[in-house]
Amino acid sequence: MSSNTIHRLRLFVYNNLQNKSHDSKLSRYVDYFLICLILTNVAAVIAESVDTWYYPFQQQFLWFEHFSIMVFTTEYLLRFWSIVEADPKANNWGQRWRWIRSPGALIDLIAIGPAFLNFYVSIDLRFLRVLRLFRLLKLTRYFASMRILLIVLNKERGAFQAVIFILIILIVTASSGIYLVENQAQPEVFESIPKSMWWAVVTLTTVGYGDVIPITTAGKILGAVITILGVGLAALPAGILATGLANELSQRKEELEQRFREILLEGDIDLVQNQTQIESMRKELGLEKEQAQDIVLQVMRELHLEKRENEVRKKNFCPHCGERLD
Amino acid sequence: MSSNTIHRLRLFVYNNLQNKSHDSKLSRYVDYFLICLILTNVAAVIAESVDTWYYPFQQQFLWFEHFSIMVFTTEYLLRFWSIVEADPKANNWGQRWRWIRSPGALIDLIAIGPAFLNFYVSIDLRFLRVLRLFRLLKLTRYFASMRILLIVLNKERGAFQAVIFILIILIVTASSGIYLVENQAQPEVFESIPKSMWWAVVTLTTVGYGDVIPITTAGKILGAVITILGVGLAALPAGILATGLANELSQRKEELEQRFREILLEGDIDLVQNQTQIESMRKELGLEKEQAQDIVLQVMRELHLEKRENEVRKKNFCPHCGERLD
Amino acid sequence: MSSNTIHRLRLFVYNNLQNKSHDSKLSRYVDYFLICLILTNVAAVIAESVDTWYYPFQQQFLWFEHFSIMVFTTEYLLRFWSIVEADPKANNWGQRWRWIRSPGALIDLIAIGPAFLNFYVSIDLRFLRVLRLFRLLKLTRYFASMRILLIVLNKERGAFQAVIFILIILIVTASSGIYLVENQAQPEVFESIPKSMWWAVVTLTTVGYGDVIPITTAGKILGAVITILGVGLAALPAGILATGLANELSQRKEELEQRFREILLEGDIDLVQNQTQIESMRKELGLEKEQAQDIVLQVMRELHLEKRENEVRKKNFCPHCGERLD
Amino acid sequence: MSSNTIHRLRLFVYNNLQNKSHDSKLSRYVDYFLICLILTNVAAVIAESVDTWYYPFQQQFLWFEHFSIMVFTTEYLLRFWSIVEADPKANNWGQRWRWIRSPGALIDLIAIGPAFLNFYVSIDLRFLRVLRLFRLLKLTRYFASMRILLIVLNKERGAFQAVIFILIILIVTASSGIYLVENQAQPEVFESIPKSMWWAVVTLTTVGYGDVIPITTAGKILGAVITILGVGLAALPAGILATGLANELSQRKEELEQRFREILLEGDIDLVQNQTQIESMRKELGLEKEQAQDIVLQVMRELHLEKRENEVRKKNFCPHCGERLD
Repeated sequence: MSSNTIHRLRLFVYNNLQNKSHDSKLSRYVDYFLICLILTNVAAVIAESVDTWYYPFQQQFLWFEHFSIMVFTTEYLLRFWSIVEADPKANNWGQRWRWIRSPGALIDLIAIGPAFLNFYVSIDLRFLRVLRLFRLLKLTRYFASMRILLIVLNKERGAFQAVIFILIILIVTASSGIYLVENQAQPEVFESIPKSMWWAVVTLTTVGYGDVIPITTAGKILGAVITILGVGLAALPAGILATGLANELSQRKEELEQRFREILLEGDIDLVQNQTQIESMRKELGLEKEQAQDIVLQVMRELHLEKRENEVRKKNFCPHCGERLD
Repeated sequence: MSSNTIHRLRLFVYNNLQNKSHDSKLSRYVDYFLICLILTNVAAVIAESVDTWYYPFQQQFLWFEHFSIMVFTTEYLLRFWSIVEADPKANNWGQRWRWIRSPGALIDLIAIGPAFLNFYVSIDLRFLRVLRLFRLLKLTRYFASMRILLIVLNKERGAFQAVIFILIILIVTASSGIYLVENQAQPEVFESIPKSMWWAVVTLTTVGYGDVIPITTAGKILGAVITILGVGLAALPAGILATGLANELSQRKEELEQRFREILLEGDIDLVQNQTQIESMRKELGLEKEQAQDIVLQVMRELHLEKRENEVRKKNFCPHCGERLD
Repeated sequence: MSSNTIHRLRLFVYNNLQNKSHDSKLSRYVDYFLICLILTNVAAVIAESVDTWYYPFQQQFLWFEHFSIMVFTTEYLLRFWSIVEADPKANNWGQRWRWIRSPGALIDLIAIGPAFLNFYVSIDLRFLRVLRLFRLLKLTRYFASMRILLIVLNKERGAFQAVIFILIILIVTASSGIYLVENQAQPEVFESIPKSMWWAVVTLTTVGYGDVIPITTAGKILGAVITILGVGLAALPAGILATGLANELSQRKEELEQRFREILLEGDIDLVQNQTQIESMRKELGLEKEQAQDIVLQVMRELHLEKRENEVRKKNFCPHCGERLD
Repeated sequence: MSSNTIHRLRLFVYNNLQNKSHDSKLSRYVDYFLICLILTNVAAVIAESVDTWYYPFQQQFLWFEHFSIMVFTTEYLLRFWSIVEADPKANNWGQRWRWIRSPGALIDLIAIGPAFLNFYVSIDLRFLRVLRLFRLLKLTRYFASMRILLIVLNKERGAFQAVIFILIILIVTASSGIYLVENQAQPEVFESIPKSMWWAVVTLTTVGYGDVIPITTAGKILGAVITILGVGLAALPAGILATGLANELSQRKEELEQRFREILLEGDIDLVQNQTQIESMRKELGLEKEQAQDIVLQVMRELHLEKRENEVRKKNFCPHCGERLD
């Protein structure tokens, strides 16, 4: 193969496997196939744990696993090989080395790693199977909303740190308190602080299995106080995440609005071109189509209203000196 | 009957059954009657499942069911017939075909469908009865806040997708982990991953029945970690929905405010006419009366304040050249 | 007593018992005394239910109850008598009649009513005792944040309506579904739809006592799906309330800000007078002192920044024609 | 030692132990060492409660405790001694007295107090050990997000007051109601209102252990209603806290934005100096680096957009008289 053919092939692979702005039928089919394979893999892991499903089809499960590893390994190698097309001017091996350390590539490696490890080290088969579940993480690549959620998690990590810190304080305090109070009445259940922690976690998260319950009056009062405090705290991360998500999305909407205003300021460029520009900005910001349309309409309306206000003002004031005309 | 009489009758039916901007005593009574019938139907389904209530009044329950089907079928046919009045210029059958595929019409069909199916196919009686509960969905038509909630659900579907995706990952991971760890100690309860999923769901949603509980130390530690992670996630959809609802309402308020400002810009049109206009906008946006009044007051106040600021400014600056007067 | 003395006495009673803008040592002691009495009453109701506490002190509990009724009745009559001072120009009995129908007066009546009813009708003693708990509602008068919460509840009633409507649909659907699926396996527990509702409520609210649990695979799958849906919904009212509360408070802050700007526009009125004005506005809006101070500082700072910006602009542009000076 | 040496030593201690704007390698190591010691102390308390861990290493635990007290006491004394460097002009002992009453110093005192008390009073050993957990509070000093959370808790105390007030009303009402209804069927479990409160708390917080459950139909209906009401309320504090946290952070961001705008108005001061200024403002407001950078970029962009808009306007309007150029 000539160097040119290789180059064209590599570009073709890159476009259909990795390039997100390249949107062809083939690239979509590749995505669908990989998503399906990941989901089938997860289903297989679950099914293999059921003896009545596993034993009759042992061979088929093995074949499917071999097929999956082959596909995922090929995917990994092709990505590794074609990533250089992302920036044709950069150094090939430098780019590949950067890619290998990217989160996406690490997830891909984790997805196939354990299967290869098995050749050298003998791992407990059952444990090995479950490790295959890491393949689920490969899905992250295909869902924009997942990535936004991760970004929010990262942005709000300060708040989460505080919540986890308080949660730990609460758990330690609760388990120590209940240990002091209930140890005499139920020496086995509340034998030590670490053992009491099970009660603390089950109670503070409001799961409340009912396997460990305070029975003394003091224990019940302590339990009640801790539960009331805990309830508020346990739901806090969800609240922070929800508010953070809403803020992130509204920030992105504002960003889109601002960019759109900037475009409109340039004057009457033909609309079709703008449409493409807005679409690409929308994708970049991970917003949905409807939201983008709402924003565009909103901006155009506000501009119209401003214009009207200016016109009304002009009617009432002299445009030459600003003096009122009455 | 002359064509004219039919036309007038059809308009009369349309106005009282379907036209939301037509607000007469009769149309309100029709609404109340249908709401009551729906609720009574649901009550009947529930009552029929209690043997001591059902057997003595078997005949009456049957009569009531026949009466309900008759009413709902008539309602469906009348709606189908009179929908053409919505847009008298459009093609009659085209409009009817569009109506048939609308969500409201589909719900109406589902409400009566199973009863008719019963004539041809013999369905398990108990199952058939429960299908009648779909009639509850007919209520959606009568509650504005329900529709807003559905719109928010639709708008935030990206976030929900992400949450459900993570929830599935968590459930799969949790059940696989607990299966690995607890399978030896409790081979029956944690027999396979699918069986362990029951524990995972019950724990992650903080229901915590207590029928399946980890008993090994490793299982308890894993359970504690998963519970703490899960608690945050389980409450997330509620948080997203609540924030989304608040945003949707504030957006609608802003919309109303903007439209109101646009009206005010037109000049001093007589107030009574504006009142009607605001009222119709309010209904269109699904806001409550109080909220609309608050907005109107707010806008008028802001305009007054702006005026005052301009007057103060004028006092201090020459209105002809903008030069400061001191 | 001369009419003048009566008038002065009535004003004195009105100021110390009802007038909120009157802030004397006596009025505060009256408030503290009534709050204490209400709390002691609640404590007494709780204590009376414990046999070992009640029987030895039966007489004392009776005396305390008689004393409480006497005080609350006197309070009610004094309020009834002195309310006319609220608007000295209005018709006395008209004002009293309006007061009687006000929520506050109705709560006061409910607090003493059952005790008097007991003279005529013989009510079950235990039930009568618990009715005394209504006296707790009298506390509403003394907590501003309680009133704000009630206002938010009222404003968001549309959203709550929707949530309760969906919750009812979910409960009815869940209980009917589980009844269909589990009735065969557990004919006693899931005997009928109303009986299954207990399971539905306990599960959807994530309480999960564990007394009623699906045991069939179909029942567990249905239970899992319903739980996941329900978890989101059950926490929704809290989310709506929290967002509503935040919005209400921020709206009140904006209101304060706007009013403060209006005052500042009037020019340099002496600061002390403004302080009193701001304080009275703050109380009217139910905000805390710190919040009000923050707003005042914020407004003054923004005004200062605007001034600076104008000065900078003036430096760069000719103030006579707006032409740039470079 | 000369007075000068002492002074320099005191400043050195102050900078490395207390001065937050002093950022040297040593000061960071001191922080890390103290954080580690606190965490090890907590771990020791937990470990001592496990008999199989405690008895073999009894001596070591005692030595570690003595070492910890020594370090914490030294830390307290050094802080007490060096705090005067915070404001060299103020009165030394006055400053120390103010420091002693500060929350941070009180926490430090509580952390070492019980150990010293033990010399004079003989306290139950187990209780004394648990008191050591207060040392966890010392961590507050090292986490900015913790402090923000406490500030939000303080700001929203009005809302929390209302929620706790309603929660108490609900608990009292629920336990009284269930006591009335279930007392006959389960005289032991629902013996009195205080005993019924355990059920009320466990249910309203959705913990639902399942040890106490209503069994009569009336009890179940009451329980269902109370649970539905309670679920909304129990998650309310979390919602309020989450919204409050989000508002606090956005307020701080706005504060940073405003200050940054103020700096930019001053003109083109050299960028490096501004960088330091922004950094110190960022730390003061407890924001993260990324957030600060986002704000700076946002402000610069907005200013750029405003400039562009002005330029466009100038192109279309005569800059001398404001008349439109078409």
